[in-house]
Order: sequence, then C-alpha cells, then structure tokens
Amino acid sequence: MVNYQASTLDRTFAALADPTRRALLARLDQQDTVSVSELARPFPVSLPAIMKHLDVLSDAGLISRTKTGRTVACQLTPAPMEQAMNWLAHYERYWTEQLDRLAAFLEQDQWQPSPASSSSAASKPPRKKSTKRGPGRSK
Amino acid sequence: MVNYQASTLDRTFAALADPTRRALLARLDQQDTVSVSELARPFPVSLPAIMKHLDVLSDAGLISRTKTGRTVACQLTPAPMEQAMNWLAHYERYWTEQLDRLAAFLEQDQWQPSPASSSSAASKPPRKKSTKRGPGRSK
Repeated sequence: MVNYQASTLDRTFAALADPTRRALLARLDQQDTVSVSELARPFPVSLPAIMKHLDVLSDAGLISRTKTGRTVACQLTPAPMEQAMNWLAHYERYWTEQLDRLAAFLEQDQWQPSPASSSSAASKPPRKKSTKRGPGRSK
Repeated sequence: MVNYQASTLDRTFAALADPTRRALLARLDQQDTVSVSELARPFPVSLPAIMKHLDVLSDAGLISRTKTGRTVACQLTPAPMEQAMNWLAHYERYWTEQLDRLAAFLEQDQWQPSPASSSSAASKPPRKKSTKRGPGRSK
C-alpha cells in the first residue's frame, strides 16, 4: 500500500511538473469534456506532443479518455491531486506560523498605545487567534 | 513574473516526484539542521546519489545548505511548497464536493423517518452545511 501510494505520488508530482500539462488540466477544469484536437488547438506544439502529455496525465490518473467513433474526449479525474495536497499539507504549519507571526506583529503595531490613550492600555482586547487558513483562499 | 512562477512550480513538482527526495524533506522536517552525511545514513544509496538529490532540492529552493569547516548542513526551506499547494487548492472543490455529497447521503440515511416517527418528519432539522475542509486535517 505504501509503495502504491509512493508511486502514485511520484507520478502525480512528475505529471504536474510541466506547464503544458498544468495548462491542459486547467482547460479540463473549465470544461467537463474536451476532445483531444480541441484541447491541442491553443498550444504552439504539435498534436503528437500534446498526445504524449495526455499519456503522462492519464498514467498519473489525472485524466480519463473515452473514444466515441473517431473522437477521443478527455475528462479531468483530479483524485490523485488530493493525495499530493495532503502530502504538502504536512508542511503547511511553516507558512501559517509565519502568517500568524505577521498578524501578531501587525496587531501589536495597531494597538500600540498612543500618548492620548496610554491609560486605557489595560483595556486592550485579547489577540484574536488567527484562524487556520485553508487552501481555498486562492480561489 | 508568470514565467518565474511557472518555472518555480516546475522545479518544485519535479523535486517532489521522487520518494528519496520526499524522505529527505521529511527528515529535515523532524530536525532543524542535519549534516549531509547524517542525512544520507539511513538511505540504501551512495553518498554521491544523495548529494545529487540534495542538488535538485536546493535548485527548487526546498532546502538551503551551509558549510561550517568541512561539514555541510541542510535546512528545510518549504516556501515553494506553499505555491504548489495553492496551485492544487484550485482543484480542491472536486473532492470537498464529493465529501459533501457523502455527508448529505449519510445524514439523509440517519434521518430517514422510522415508522414510529414518520409523523414528525416535518420537524427534521435543516442539513448542517459541511464546513470546507482545510488541508490541515491530515496532521
């Protein structure tokens, strides 16, 4: 099981390490099912080159292909990305801790008692604990 | 800037596509600073092979190396992982929506009116909206 997961992660990360492949996934994110020729159209590379990229994505389980007559259509199957994200999430505390420190610094700066309000410094509200940022923030 | 980010992502994902490199990062996550020879010890590969893996990690900005006398020590610099995670987060809705559907199904099953309580079906509480799962869940 561990070996299976390791090789899945290998293939997922390797598949994502190419800008054309990431662009193909982004296209399939916008539209449910897209034919190979339609997928290839915007790219300044040959159709066989795109086919090779699609093979890599398919081997990684990131897309599925269905043939109807002479047309091959591709669909996004993003499940392996969840595993990749879970692996990365293990390291998330590094950047959330940095953000927490920045937030604490900014709040401290904001609540620095001015000469006029120095007597009311004791009424400073407790620092609101920064909520853990989910990855959905970049949407 | 876009090109810079693209090549950063290329290098990050490519660096993460190898189980030995991921294991080296995991080791550096456990201990702040580790010498190269100490890092290499648990692996059944040669020191030069480990040095090549460390070169890839360093080129991707995932580790930094400092030399003190004859000892080279490595340290984790996980910033590029945040960018990789942000890229993956764009697709997170696929698996959170699947989880939401599963939660809805399970709740529906749980609240299925039994013959004894079928008259009180109208008092079924509204389905609690599933909170968006952050990536920190796997910790």
